[in-house]
Amino acid sequence: MNDFIFENSTKIFFGKGCVKEHLACLTKDYGDTVMLAYGGGSIKRSGVYDVVTAALKQAGKHIVEFSGIMANPTYAKVLEGAKLAKENHVGLILGVGGGSVMDCCKAVSIAARYDGDVWTDFWENRGTIDFEPLPVGVIVTLSGTGSECNGEGVITNEELKVKTGRDYPKCNPRFSMLDPTYTYSVPKYQLASSSFDILSHIMEIYFSGPDEDNVSDDISEALMRNVIRNLRVAIQNPEDYTARGNLMWDSAMAENRIIKLGKRLDFQCHQMEHQLGAYTNCTHGAGLAVLHPVYYRHIYKEGLAKFKRFAVDVWGISAEGKTDEEIALAGIDALADFIVEIGMPVTLRELGVDESTDLKAIADSCTIVTGSYKKLTHEEILDIFKECF
Amino acid sequence: MNDFIFENSTKIFFGKGCVKEHLACLTKDYGDTVMLAYGGGSIKRSGVYDVVTAALKQAGKHIVEFSGIMANPTYAKVLEGAKLAKENHVGLILGVGGGSVMDCCKAVSIAARYDGDVWTDFWENRGTIDFEPLPVGVIVTLSGTGSECNGEGVITNEELKVKTGRDYPKCNPRFSMLDPTYTYSVPKYQLASSSFDILSHIMEIYFSGPDEDNVSDDISEALMRNVIRNLRVAIQNPEDYTARGNLMWDSAMAENRIIKLGKRLDFQCHQMEHQLGAYTNCTHGAGLAVLHPVYYRHIYKEGLAKFKRFAVDVWGISAEGKTDEEIALAGIDALADFIVEIGMPVTLRELGVDESTDLKAIADSCTIVTGSYKKLTHEEILDIFKECF
Repeated sequence: MNDFIFENSTKIFFGKGCVKEHLACLTKDYGDTVMLAYGGGSIKRSGVYDVVTAALKQAGKHIVEFSGIMANPTYAKVLEGAKLAKENHVGLILGVGGGSVMDCCKAVSIAARYDGDVWTDFWENRGTIDFEPLPVGVIVTLSGTGSECNGEGVITNEELKVKTGRDYPKCNPRFSMLDPTYTYSVPKYQLASSSFDILSHIMEIYFSGPDEDNVSDDISEALMRNVIRNLRVAIQNPEDYTARGNLMWDSAMAENRIIKLGKRLDFQCHQMEHQLGAYTNCTHGAGLAVLHPVYYRHIYKEGLAKFKRFAVDVWGISAEGKTDEEIALAGIDALADFIVEIGMPVTLRELGVDESTDLKAIADSCTIVTGSYKKLTHEEILDIFKECF
Repeated sequence: MNDFIFENSTKIFFGKGCVKEHLACLTKDYGDTVMLAYGGGSIKRSGVYDVVTAALKQAGKHIVEFSGIMANPTYAKVLEGAKLAKENHVGLILGVGGGSVMDCCKAVSIAARYDGDVWTDFWENRGTIDFEPLPVGVIVTLSGTGSECNGEGVITNEELKVKTGRDYPKCNPRFSMLDPTYTYSVPKYQLASSSFDILSHIMEIYFSGPDEDNVSDDISEALMRNVIRNLRVAIQNPEDYTARGNLMWDSAMAENRIIKLGKRLDFQCHQMEHQLGAYTNCTHGAGLAVLHPVYYRHIYKEGLAKFKRFAVDVWGISAEGKTDEEIALAGIDALADFIVEIGMPVTLRELGVDESTDLKAIADSCTIVTGSYKKLTHEEILDIFKECF
């Protein structure tokens, strides 16, 4: 196990009715004005908007609305939110939604307290910014990114065609409210893609060194099996509280830093998907679903023992009469079959990428990570994109 | 999954050399005087004492020593520490040791900031005390209790013959330093008993409702397998860094509240062992080892499905050709065999309990918990003690 330093300051409220029960009290320490941030109209249709605004009014808060946060939130939207927050002396940003809303809120929380060029200084040059961002609290209505319990905000600079993020611990939400019933209305495609995002986070951590016996790997396997089992249930019965609750907590556990402890991390597939997203605006989880099996067929030989373990321990593949390589490939096949089973796309074409898309430009724009079992080249990333096409 | 609220404020430093690297810097926010709390002379023999005092001197701290903290730390010792802390205007209590030292430090941190009768008000009547205890930091030299990452301090009131504890979140250590090499010198018996304590914490959580699919149960199984595998390695090779590191992190993960989320918790066995400890001063983990298999044979029928799952998923028992009851019992047998394998006692007699011990008085003094699969009576606890004799 590699050395690590760990802390996570987010306070989690989990359970049916937790927003109604706790929100008003939770906001008391954050001044008079709350910026209520959300996406489109789904939280109004589901009734969540009414519950939230009633609680804020009960707490005597002035509400500033910041709506229209899109999937793959843009830097322009972040600046819009920051301006609004500054002008209204906002004391708390309350994000209600999924990963895009939460990520945007965290980015706004930095930009609202920074006078310089925050894109260049913080995201592009990854410089140290040591100040307290505006406090953020979140209410999750779509889980998957794990943004509810870390400091990461992934945003897209449309002008530069770069989608990137950083886990800045001071951006950890002060509180995260997880009511599984709030996710009942999430359509199946989004349920599947956001749950595949959870699985992907775990795999990106699991498939990296060090490979000696490591508690984090054991926990990762437990979480992967839990995601697979509960996603199957939730697809069949969207209002299965247990399945939705487990997926919600899996999402948090995959990204609250616990399973990353002592590990090197890969996240090459996320880097590739981020750039696909920056160029094509595809759905994050769906992009990951297309890339993962192809990426893994490119790298499994360099991490053979781990891929074999994945096949046996996560997918229940029998090792009997098979070579290590056959077992490893059977695990990747099982993953690929699962992607089909849950209705995710398997080609870039299905994601909406067409012949006119400059795959080479996307490949060349991808960051090459150091934590992977096999360090890719931009040529190999292009090969992967072409195989996915 | 039951509703829950979760937070954990402790910052963890893990890895070889972490104390030397980080301690001086970590203490800077806590005034001029540090109370260095420890047990006997083992930290002097191992060299840890020198590393710690050098770091504190480097940080310009005045050191007040509070030594001689015993296994099963007493309330009298807590009051001694509180007096010392008050008299010397201590800003940080730094505990160096295992669970007894850490628990004592947390209890001192409360008593040092309270003028009333802290035993009666806090531990006995379990009243609300809403104030900031003295900050505590810990350096772990024996892991098992998990005290390094929660607010619990278990102490023994010798006069009243009561051993009890409470998880008061404000008593969470501000920082916990986990250097696996610091545990190399722990003798095999203590290694086995403290590791069995880890296993016991996980089992006490796992064997409780609700029993529907629950992420926490999956993580618990992963942790149990990790403890079993790595304890076997560490017993063979006490200086196996990976095994010691895994056990150290298992200890923290078992008690940082994560696997308790959504669960009811049992801890009946801990209640019984605490009272055995209060009357006989036996080693905590060893007492748990004696009690667990017998306790589980008393309750398994009420939690049959879970005991079956434990047998198959944790111990690898084949279910083929066996009834559910046979599988469940085979799992408990595997646990009992493991206890023998790691050199733990299997009878109270081996723990030093003799005919003169008033088992009925001990049984009658045990708290009956509500979270267990089967609510025991004091008569049944006495039966268990007698079977263990």
